[in-house]
Amino acid sequence: MSDHISKQYDSELEAVRNKVLQMGGLVEQQISKAVEALDTGDLALVNAVVSGDAHVNRLEVEIDEACTQMIARRQPAAGDLRVIHTIMRMITDLERIGDEAVKISRMAQAISEANRAHLPRVELKHLENTAIGMLRRALDAYARLDVQGATAVVREDEAVDVEYASIVRQLITHMMEDPRTISRAIELLFVSKALERIGDHSKNMCEYVIYMVKGRDVRHLAIEEFEQSVQRD
Amino acid sequence: MSDHISKQYDSELEAVRNKVLQMGGLVEQQISKAVEALDTGDLALVNAVVSGDAHVNRLEVEIDEACTQMIARRQPAAGDLRVIHTIMRMITDLERIGDEAVKISRMAQAISEANRAHLPRVELKHLENTAIGMLRRALDAYARLDVQGATAVVREDEAVDVEYASIVRQLITHMMEDPRTISRAIELLFVSKALERIGDHSKNMCEYVIYMVKGRDVRHLAIEEFEQSVQRD
Repeated sequence: MSDHISKQYDSELEAVRNKVLQMGGLVEQQISKAVEALDTGDLALVNAVVSGDAHVNRLEVEIDEACTQMIARRQPAAGDLRVIHTIMRMITDLERIGDEAVKISRMAQAISEANRAHLPRVELKHLENTAIGMLRRALDAYARLDVQGATAVVREDEAVDVEYASIVRQLITHMMEDPRTISRAIELLFVSKALERIGDHSKNMCEYVIYMVKGRDVRHLAIEEFEQSVQRD
Repeated sequence: MSDHISKQYDSELEAVRNKVLQMGGLVEQQISKAVEALDTGDLALVNAVVSGDAHVNRLEVEIDEACTQMIARRQPAAGDLRVIHTIMRMITDLERIGDEAVKISRMAQAISEANRAHLPRVELKHLENTAIGMLRRALDAYARLDVQGATAVVREDEAVDVEYASIVRQLITHMMEDPRTISRAIELLFVSKALERIGDHSKNMCEYVIYMVKGRDVRHLAIEEFEQSVQRD
């Protein structure tokens, strides 16, 4: 590329990068609101999440189009292409995290409108905080091209899976001990599942960040191979 | 592109297209085996699905690399770029359908090893057949560039969601009537969820096919706008 074209390319890429972070911030807010709706039963928050999802979707389509145009017009070399493909993948996962926020807020609505007397007492706070924290750290790792940070998020996903399995067991125990809790327990099960999925998507994003920085595809590796692969250089 | 380069590009693209269909066929087999494992409790099938997943993952990485190399080397114009990006997106969904097959087979294993006396009688056959049928028709629509066929699959996803919600309600009823069914019911709930996700991924793939053929992004449209958009020309 000539210097002039290369500068144009850099500023286009910078604009897209900023938009990804904007989309990430928005999705983070969507989850926080959904989780707050669950705690408080505030239906205004439920509506805010549902209507906010259109904005998330719009950003995905806009960023996607900007990426396709950059590739078609600038014909980037392999390294730059990797950066753009990483962005295209990240926004797919971000959009799906947005969908999980909508699912959580729908469950918050169902729970809010039902008899809360039979709501099983299960502590979701830790899983909520971990899922939101993973998303935030995935976005930070992307912003800073931080392979160490991205690797930490990938490892954290194992802890989320363990926590999720524990909550499922607790919910089953509640249901068995008091069948009146069954309907609410199933709703909380879906909330937990959504939080676990947010962990999965955050992990996916971090794998893309590592691929972008290292040029090495680390998806589908066991965690030990993965860490060896990342530490290798 | 010169004629010579264009012919090379065509044959590379054809090879990748065939590999996508091969991957699709493999994923279809994975689900069929997982569902059969659920019906029969055959643990050999469970093992076959778990070990088959590595093959699915390998195909995803290979196709992805082939796509990136084609873009970097051939610098395709906007239309061809759209075709390659469609493939890259489709294989992400195919790989995740493969993951759902593994989840179903794990549940088949849990159910097979547990006391089947308290297995709630819920008919999953229809949901199973619809999910597998959607995947098959999504792959057909891709192979034939069939926008009508792809649209039909997108519409079918609504029926899957209704069927899934009905199964969840039936499972809740079983649990309430006989709490001894709770553990098995939760496992069947996860199986149903996995089948519903297979429908979602098949729908995603069809939206990409429509985008590829029509050059119009139909994700995030309501079904009516969607059909209008597809019929518009």
